[in-house]
Amino acid sequence: LTHGLQAHNVRAAAIALADAAPYLPSGAVVLAVVDPSVGGSRMAIAADTADGVSLVGPDNGLLWLAAERLGGVTALAEISNSVARLQPVSDTFHGRDIFAPVAARIALGDTLEKLGNLLAPDSITPLDLPVPQLSANALQTEVLDIDHFGNIRLCASAEALQSTPVELRTAVEVEASGLRMPALRVATYSDVSSGELLLYEDSSGALAIAVNGGSAAQLLGADRSSTIKLIWV
Amino acid sequence: LTHGLQAHNVRAAAIALADAAPYLPSGAVVLAVVDPSVGGSRMAIAADTADGVSLVGPDNGLLWLAAERLGGVTALAEISNSVARLQPVSDTFHGRDIFAPVAARIALGDTLEKLGNLLAPDSITPLDLPVPQLSANALQTEVLDIDHFGNIRLCASAEALQSTPVELRTAVEVEASGLRMPALRVATYSDVSSGELLLYEDSSGALAIAVNGGSAAQLLGADRSSTIKLIWV
Amino acid sequence: LTHGLQAHNVRAAAIALADAAPYLPSGAVVLAVVDPSVGGSRMAIAADTADGVSLVGPDNGLLWLAAERLGGVTALAEISNSVARLQPVSDTFHGRDIFAPVAARIALGDTLEKLGNLLAPDSITPLDLPVPQLSANALQTEVLDIDHFGNIRLCASAEALQSTPVELRTAVEVEASGLRMPALRVATYSDVSSGELLLYEDSSGALAIAVNGGSAAQLLGADRSSTIKLIWV
Repeated sequence: LTHGLQAHNVRAAAIALADAAPYLPSGAVVLAVVDPSVGGSRMAIAADTADGVSLVGPDNGLLWLAAERLGGVTALAEISNSVARLQPVSDTFHGRDIFAPVAARIALGDTLEKLGNLLAPDSITPLDLPVPQLSANALQTEVLDIDHFGNIRLCASAEALQSTPVELRTAVEVEASGLRMPALRVATYSDVSSGELLLYEDSSGALAIAVNGGSAAQLLGADRSSTIKLIWV
Repeated sequence: LTHGLQAHNVRAAAIALADAAPYLPSGAVVLAVVDPSVGGSRMAIAADTADGVSLVGPDNGLLWLAAERLGGVTALAEISNSVARLQPVSDTFHGRDIFAPVAARIALGDTLEKLGNLLAPDSITPLDLPVPQLSANALQTEVLDIDHFGNIRLCASAEALQSTPVELRTAVEVEASGLRMPALRVATYSDVSSGELLLYEDSSGALAIAVNGGSAAQLLGADRSSTIKLIWV
Repeated sequence: LTHGLQAHNVRAAAIALADAAPYLPSGAVVLAVVDPSVGGSRMAIAADTADGVSLVGPDNGLLWLAAERLGGVTALAEISNSVARLQPVSDTFHGRDIFAPVAARIALGDTLEKLGNLLAPDSITPLDLPVPQLSANALQTEVLDIDHFGNIRLCASAEALQSTPVELRTAVEVEASGLRMPALRVATYSDVSSGELLLYEDSSGALAIAVNGGSAAQLLGADRSSTIKLIWV
């Protein structure tokens, strides 16, 4: 799906995977690895989902949201000692030694029962997602991710604004890193002038901030650890 | 073909696509997206070419030069409301919602007539390419692109120098960002010493500037918005 | 296998290729290009190996270590003027004009004898690898590569420490760029606290330095030209 993920950022990767989930055909096997605790105590898992897609990776929250969007987990296995693993298993590269060979065996038709130790399907580790703080005229939340355009995706869905006093208001200010700059809530980049900030619903339903033809992250001095506040004025 | 394109740079991407065009087999379907005006007024198009390759993407000049090198457009369709599109169509990701499903349907054999509204083939939007300024002993032009080596590709073909007084002269100076540095016109990187500047015809026929084992962009302080002047001395 | 290689760094690419070699199936044809001397005097080669994998690329050391790990070269051909080459051959992109078409013809079943001029198998250019300097309580060597996490891979295998006085000692200091910082020799990232340095055997058997959840290169101010010294304390 992508190699363009930030190092160590399980949350952003989990959402990238979940966003891709609806477009996966039944029978697909997806190996996902963002695994800062590789070789430690986190489990290695393979999951079958109601929609017929199988997911393989570390049990650190990375697979959970995608599994939810695929109808939920129907079977789950711990695969650290899978018969399919490459031996010796290294301490720092389970993608090669455990996940890839297990995913390949699933693609060839092997069952999770054969490939690991079955667990309760609901024992998959969930992802901790921040809840945006919403007041009458403001919303504060964390950065979910920043893409290579410098577009800032927020930990808040556009739905969060539905039925609020600001739902239809377009003039907004964006506060980040001590800076506060005006933006317009519009549908797409070219709805504002070149170089101007916009607030929009991105292609996966999240609130996002961009600059038409430029980088919002650079303009605002924001990075992936920033807190962003939107103030309707 | 590549994910290594600069954000928002339609011109450089159009030329990368056109450079690849001669190597595409008949029947190939190419989806190309560099689309800063996505969701705005630019059309979404699919084009068949005389050489049997189909191109799908935004009508912002991106596809035009490739189409020319593939014998020209033989059929053209506006596909914004294609029956193949995913609904709802997002305002910021037509690659997923329009271009990819239309390209897939073309690959499966659907005609442009079925997939969109036919347009006159010559109504595809052309690309605006700068004309290098050539005098008796100098050439001035824009940067077309800078690759990950720091090699600077110019908006000028090596052919531009044919039948000029400087055609066979190898000593040249490169002026960029106020700096002026000596270079040699040679065939390849190792024809100059390590760390030295060279002017050469790149693998697609463009004039280009490099440093043997280093980065010409870094040495000259040049970026993609620079103007470059070559002076034969 | 990867596009994530450093420009001009033949040694790091050769080792990345050699690390992948054991996982390649018999019959695989691998085209590898890190080719700073393209168009110069280095040969262009194709090699068959004892394990049934064929390698195609520049004869600058890039293919040698992989060939060794694949049982050694059983047939070798110079392919600069191969019947399969695209003409005209550019001076700066043999990947497109020589290596790719020759690799494609090998994959289709053509022999090296048909595709080039046979050479003695042992005439392939070897790779020059630095030997780590080992004393009673210290090891000094060069950086082999730094990955996108900032993990520093050293030009020394973990085996180099076997049967030495420091083999089982975990407290070590890392010296780079004039800085000297404490680290622990452990198995994996999460064996040290977040933000702490570790020395470990990476998934291909090399000694490597990382920061749990961070970048060792950034912490130590090290780059690919750094010399690293490990001191057991």
